[in-house]
Amino acid sequence: MSFDAWSHAHRARIETALSRFLPGDELRSGELCEAMRYSVLGGGKRLRALLSYAAAEAINAKAAIADHAAAAVEMIHAYSLIHDDLPCMDNDDMRRGKPTNHVKFGEATAMLAGDALQPLAFRVVLDAAQSGASANGIVAATRLLADASGAFGMAGGQAIDLANVGKPMTQDALEEMHALKTGAMFKAAVVLPALLSEAPDPRIAALEVFAQNIGLAFQVVDDVLDATADSETLGKTAGKDAQNEKPTFVSLMGIDAAHTYARALTRNAIAALEGSDMPCSRLIEVAFAMADRKS
Amino acid sequence: MSFDAWSHAHRARIETALSRFLPGDELRSGELCEAMRYSVLGGGKRLRALLSYAAAEAINAKAAIADHAAAAVEMIHAYSLIHDDLPCMDNDDMRRGKPTNHVKFGEATAMLAGDALQPLAFRVVLDAAQSGASANGIVAATRLLADASGAFGMAGGQAIDLANVGKPMTQDALEEMHALKTGAMFKAAVVLPALLSEAPDPRIAALEVFAQNIGLAFQVVDDVLDATADSETLGKTAGKDAQNEKPTFVSLMGIDAAHTYARALTRNAIAALEGSDMPCSRLIEVAFAMADRKS
Repeated sequence: MSFDAWSHAHRARIETALSRFLPGDELRSGELCEAMRYSVLGGGKRLRALLSYAAAEAINAKAAIADHAAAAVEMIHAYSLIHDDLPCMDNDDMRRGKPTNHVKFGEATAMLAGDALQPLAFRVVLDAAQSGASANGIVAATRLLADASGAFGMAGGQAIDLANVGKPMTQDALEEMHALKTGAMFKAAVVLPALLSEAPDPRIAALEVFAQNIGLAFQVVDDVLDATADSETLGKTAGKDAQNEKPTFVSLMGIDAAHTYARALTRNAIAALEGSDMPCSRLIEVAFAMADRKS
Repeated sequence: MSFDAWSHAHRARIETALSRFLPGDELRSGELCEAMRYSVLGGGKRLRALLSYAAAEAINAKAAIADHAAAAVEMIHAYSLIHDDLPCMDNDDMRRGKPTNHVKFGEATAMLAGDALQPLAFRVVLDAAQSGASANGIVAATRLLADASGAFGMAGGQAIDLANVGKPMTQDALEEMHALKTGAMFKAAVVLPALLSEAPDPRIAALEVFAQNIGLAFQVVDDVLDATADSETLGKTAGKDAQNEKPTFVSLMGIDAAHTYARALTRNAIAALEGSDMPCSRLIEVAFAMADRKS
């Protein structure tokens, strides 16, 4: 199957899985469930989900196991975007080409929708027993998800980001921030299927090195796109980093060097896999797609 | 040991456990960890923690198991207060007799502190293996915590609350809202130690009925106190419900009838335990203390 056909099929697959795991409208909870579905469904490149499915193929895990990993990571990602877009954070009106959650539902409901997506993501991983995961695998995977989301992961990275607006950062400090802010959840996307399947440690270690490098490459490409693409192509406000005085790889090294650095990181990621005994062709294709994306 | 001595000792115990489970200042994440510690430590009646310790005694579980349950529930409770107090929700300046989190650290850091406390609570339950819990017990307990926090629990109750400000509610609708908004986490506090210890189903069922009744009694007493106590005694703004046009048990049935109802619910809670074969004297004492509290 071509990569285009595979990624198309798996984008459809994660959409179905997310819709199944999300609450419907059965609750009398105002617009909460609608707000949760609004930000999780029907948009995004689903790079994290594709990574989970490709990682599952590399370790011969069932795609049904990857559904739990992919959906959980996409839910945490969606919650983080809802909260990031709020007026007290980035105050953004546009996301994935449509009004942000708080513009559509109001700030209070948007905050609650993010708050409720987080435990739902944990619940989805905890339910991986339905797809054959062991209790030990589930505990290990849920623990990684907790760490990747919290003060030693995504939320910690956002706090470092907040504390450094308008300040110069060294490349090391910038990389450390992004390793937490976006890298931790990319690692979760890649490694969760392996933990749920109790894959051998050397394979998990190779996947971690791969994830670390593509996570950073993703961020470097993100900074380049923010500086070079227009808002319509991005589906969100372009030029935001410079406007918000955020330190980026572009402000640190310029556009051309950032571009070259993203390619080098992608090569490092692929080298980590080539040293393992896994069938990694899909993971490599996802890594290239992430490096070459236009939005 | 007298109840006063027991509750004093276990308030000290949960403080120590929370301090150990919370991150220190080792991170370069701005004020995030300080903001997390600010709202979790050093305050509150710790009713939820006392319930976890008393429930652990009833099922002969180790107090070390209850540490994980009690700390996780107190962390979720603390995060919910931080987010509730934000300007886009209740916009409150005072909590437990000191400035609210966003008054002290700013809105963005307060939101992130709440966001980061949630996965930390999950992590604390997932780590109960350190105190001898089995993987199956941990999965069951973490699943309950996820449900109690999410759209079918606390966050769902808050959304119903938001949607009903200024509107009349029937007693049934009010009770359904509180069963989610505060009841679900009381149930988690009481039942988590039993799930972690893989206690027999009939005991878990009795604990659930107990928790359901004391959870509702707690809310009825809360409404009475909001209408009758002063802000200094409460450690938070009194009279807020009437000011915010929130439907309450006091607005629905008056102060005297609400008081009588809280006592009846407490008796129902105790009756559920007396039908079981558990040594429940501590749980009964906590139930009475909750009904008789002055703040």
